[in-house]
Amino acid sequence: MRNVLLTLSYDGTDFCGWQKQAYADEKSRVRTVQEELENALTRLHNQKTLVYGSGRTDSGVHAAGQAAHFFSPLSSIPAKNYVRALNAYLPSDIRITDAADVPDDFSARTSATSRVYRYFISPRRNIDAFQARYSWLVPYEPDIPRLNALCGCLKGEIDCTSFCASGDESLSMMRYIERAHFFESSSFPSGNPLIVFEIEANAFLWNMVRTITGTLIGLDRTGKDLPHMQKILDAKDRRAAGETAPARGLFLYKVRFDGVRRH
Amino acid sequence: MRNVLLTLSYDGTDFCGWQKQAYADEKSRVRTVQEELENALTRLHNQKTLVYGSGRTDSGVHAAGQAAHFFSPLSSIPAKNYVRALNAYLPSDIRITDAADVPDDFSARTSATSRVYRYFISPRRNIDAFQARYSWLVPYEPDIPRLNALCGCLKGEIDCTSFCASGDESLSMMRYIERAHFFESSSFPSGNPLIVFEIEANAFLWNMVRTITGTLIGLDRTGKDLPHMQKILDAKDRRAAGETAPARGLFLYKVRFDGVRRH
Repeated sequence: MRNVLLTLSYDGTDFCGWQKQAYADEKSRVRTVQEELENALTRLHNQKTLVYGSGRTDSGVHAAGQAAHFFSPLSSIPAKNYVRALNAYLPSDIRITDAADVPDDFSARTSATSRVYRYFISPRRNIDAFQARYSWLVPYEPDIPRLNALCGCLKGEIDCTSFCASGDESLSMMRYIERAHFFESSSFPSGNPLIVFEIEANAFLWNMVRTITGTLIGLDRTGKDLPHMQKILDAKDRRAAGETAPARGLFLYKVRFDGVRRH
Repeated sequence: MRNVLLTLSYDGTDFCGWQKQAYADEKSRVRTVQEELENALTRLHNQKTLVYGSGRTDSGVHAAGQAAHFFSPLSSIPAKNYVRALNAYLPSDIRITDAADVPDDFSARTSATSRVYRYFISPRRNIDAFQARYSWLVPYEPDIPRLNALCGCLKGEIDCTSFCASGDESLSMMRYIERAHFFESSSFPSGNPLIVFEIEANAFLWNMVRTITGTLIGLDRTGKDLPHMQKILDAKDRRAAGETAPARGLFLYKVRFDGVRRH
């Protein structure tokens, strides 16, 4: 058995998320990244090939560095050749950026040690067409030092129930947050001001990044400080938190596999 | 008569360029920026309103700062209010970023003193989905100092016949190039290396930026120097130049109206 790890990016705008879904006929087809990838691999291998992602991304969420593995029936080609071969079969809103052999027991989901997400926020009233596609327009001027102060309680082993959408079936609500911070950047291609929220954790609950982002922006906008954020966390109740920020601003930026041996 | 100047951005991917086109029925509809804009203004004014752009952009070409003017029948509202009102009617791949009153005899085309274009080039083999959408992948490592040396002859009053697509109906092939240079940047959102070609001129011929870009990249890739570029210019023949770089890497970045009085 040969196990191959793919690194891939996708513009989530025209996808109903990562996970493939059932549909009755071509007319009601639901476009997903996983299905496009499985179709491309199945054509390439001329046999049914399944793909296992590091995790799902929701409808409209983008990825700069999603990870997924599959079992390859081709023993002789270099893993790197999958990059060009798959890109030839894939639509241009999915691009494979790397491919590497990994041990048989490697899993993009369970071998991942952490996930890094970035959320893009446009603080201007008059955003351009590119910010409209890839960021969340907030109608005020966010205060980055205050936002970073609010992040003070997002560190270490935390019960994230307050930031979890109903319907999540995780057994535990505990997640280990490595870091969560805001920084200034500039938007593509205009150079307009842009604010980035970056968060890294071992894993995330459903809607967790978007709910944390929406909550932090809501607190900043109304001048609230760290004890308010702590109170929301302590409530362990989704209703204590703020709104869910829109999907279009969210990017799965990187999946880390520190310590995993590659062939 | 009230004359209003709009600044707007659009993601050109899903447009057949700026200029509206005739089509027989809704099924064969050709989507253009100008028509979307005229439709939005016509709905807003409840009367037919035409829009005059600073110039056309081709199918697939983007704009960060296109300019266009129209005559408004509404005398009392502040021009700025057009930003939000129009954006409410427009599809999200067109965004108005500014609106201002201008004198009656102002024209977005003839009052423009220069246009600035940026062309984005990805030098990496394995580009991501965002570079695939907004840049040209070149399969080698461009040499920025050599590219800038090749730009040495792109300055001042120049006969641009060699860089003009057949079918252009301009009376003169002379254009005044203010500046043309390459610089390093990084791609959105991954931060992968990206090369930007920026060129400013009083006006451009059809396909001129894309042909200059394709020619410069072709010369750099084959190790040619400034006399080769000068020879291509002197030939005054499109066949002497190189390939036309693809539309998706090109952005109309800014239209300048230096010295134009605004109300």
